[in-house]
Amino acid sequence: MSPGPTSPTSSTGSAVPGGTGAPAVTLDDVRDAARRLSGVAHHTPVLRSRTLDARTGTQAFLKCENFQRVGAFKFRGAYHALSHLTPEQLARGVVAHSSGNHAQAVALAARERGTRAVIVMPTDTPRSKKDATAGYGAEIVTYDRFTEDRAAISGRIAQEQGLTLIPPYDHPHVIAGQGTTALELIEETGPLDALLVPIGGGGLMAGAATAATALNPGIRMIGVEPAAGDDTRRSLAAGHRVAVPVPRTIADGQAVETPGELTFAINRRLVDSVVLVTDDEIRAAMAFAFERLKIVIEPSGASALAALLTGHLDHPPARTGVIISGGNIGLDRFHELLG
Amino acid sequence: MSPGPTSPTSSTGSAVPGGTGAPAVTLDDVRDAARRLSGVAHHTPVLRSRTLDARTGTQAFLKCENFQRVGAFKFRGAYHALSHLTPEQLARGVVAHSSGNHAQAVALAARERGTRAVIVMPTDTPRSKKDATAGYGAEIVTYDRFTEDRAAISGRIAQEQGLTLIPPYDHPHVIAGQGTTALELIEETGPLDALLVPIGGGGLMAGAATAATALNPGIRMIGVEPAAGDDTRRSLAAGHRVAVPVPRTIADGQAVETPGELTFAINRRLVDSVVLVTDDEIRAAMAFAFERLKIVIEPSGASALAALLTGHLDHPPARTGVIISGGNIGLDRFHELLG
Repeated sequence: MSPGPTSPTSSTGSAVPGGTGAPAVTLDDVRDAARRLSGVAHHTPVLRSRTLDARTGTQAFLKCENFQRVGAFKFRGAYHALSHLTPEQLARGVVAHSSGNHAQAVALAARERGTRAVIVMPTDTPRSKKDATAGYGAEIVTYDRFTEDRAAISGRIAQEQGLTLIPPYDHPHVIAGQGTTALELIEETGPLDALLVPIGGGGLMAGAATAATALNPGIRMIGVEPAAGDDTRRSLAAGHRVAVPVPRTIADGQAVETPGELTFAINRRLVDSVVLVTDDEIRAAMAFAFERLKIVIEPSGASALAALLTGHLDHPPARTGVIISGGNIGLDRFHELLG
Repeated sequence: MSPGPTSPTSSTGSAVPGGTGAPAVTLDDVRDAARRLSGVAHHTPVLRSRTLDARTGTQAFLKCENFQRVGAFKFRGAYHALSHLTPEQLARGVVAHSSGNHAQAVALAARERGTRAVIVMPTDTPRSKKDATAGYGAEIVTYDRFTEDRAAISGRIAQEQGLTLIPPYDHPHVIAGQGTTALELIEETGPLDALLVPIGGGGLMAGAATAATALNPGIRMIGVEPAAGDDTRRSLAAGHRVAVPVPRTIADGQAVETPGELTFAINRRLVDSVVLVTDDEIRAAMAFAFERLKIVIEPSGASALAALLTGHLDHPPARTGVIISGGNIGLDRFHELLG
């Protein structure tokens, strides 16, 4: 068990058991991740709102990862993966491909661990995201996303320079790191009836479900996807991973075409259902968060709150955890979406 | 000591000792307020930000009253004042004049205490603020602020209907209630070198300074006013209360012409200095809070953060508390100010 992050020559997750045998990630792995993250990642606050409770008829507990370092839960998984690197691996550095929160997460984690990070990003990534990533000391390599394959590029860089690839979700250390969100939440709130978790590649859900179902047997794990990108819902229904067309949604962090191999193997065991939300429902949740909760949430970060607000849940739970997964949105984009 | 909230026939604060003799509000009063507020007001979170610390060269601890009930610290003082009413006073009800956060605070406090609230507001108060106040069950009475005197109107209503007037700041129970912000903050963080507090009428500062200087001798109490409404700074310099012209500033909660009588008597003893911030500095602090801290702050609520960010402090303290006093701003107004 506990393989190191994917080496440059193996394909993502291939060294990891799938749906059979011992689980690839356990509560003990999540607890170990929590120890490694202690004092490095923020122990984010859990917000309550009587207005929200009155409106939804549940007691809602919002785990606010928009207050996490780099503004999203992604820092937990990235840092945890880097904390398992050998001195030799650390001496060489890491590589990741992402134009989103994983880029900044790996960049900051590398700086914290005193190693080098190369981040592969599309040429047309917004300047602000490149700057934020470079601001943490990472080297940016750009590629044309219409003509080049990012996985091939980062694989080549990894091989040529001896760097370790840090995948965004499909890795046991990344998953265990993300699971610390649910661990912290349930340790603070006590037992919950349900936990609403946004699903993109499925790493946050796989980690959260691993921790939550072990700590809190009987908890209902409810995933939330954008209606335009329901690859996990379809895959769970089919019993195997299926792909959807490139999702067109404002929830860019959840615009994934197919679930991860390892994340899906975990989620098919532990997830009870997946609820879909439209872009307008996400916008309404972002506005509610702004005006009533006084917090800033990016579209992907608002999807679980949107599912709760729209009342799409079958049997409304009495005590509901909601993971607010991130808050990285600039003022301009915010005005564009909600103005 | 501990007089009840101003009765309809006495003028605000007149029953209270001024600058001489025993202090009108003590740490014990603030502790008593904390007990009465326990389980009713939120114990708001203290946020940290490494980005903010790096930028300002201090360890900053942000006490987030934008997460308080009704979205501002005002609920603490209003509820605490109502908690001291006699059964006879509660049977009759309360009256307040405010177009801002105090209106909603008194309305909600009255609902929580099972009594009636009449709120006197200018005819041209935005619909959203009237609705929010009415939503807590208060009765709204409007007046023409160009031809009528709100104090006379609320005084008449109080007398005719036997209601108790709840003043927005110039009352010992209101001040003690607001002081629980600093009590909670310092109990959580331990000793601080300085505490930055927005000043409007001065109730938040008077309460916070009472608690903080007693708990944490040597702490520097630094008030923050909008440059266009520096009545407390001028009054402290003059050694007596002076008035400024009606302040033109986006910080509407701090647009006060002269300090309160009781609040000034306390603040002249306990406040070390007052720093001024411009509307543009407040806007920049609101944008920083949005993009980096992921929280929503109204202009008055951002002034203490603005003072920290602009580096206007003489001897930068090592550990600095900052009271984020409120977050009540709608999306439209937010876009208007920062768009």
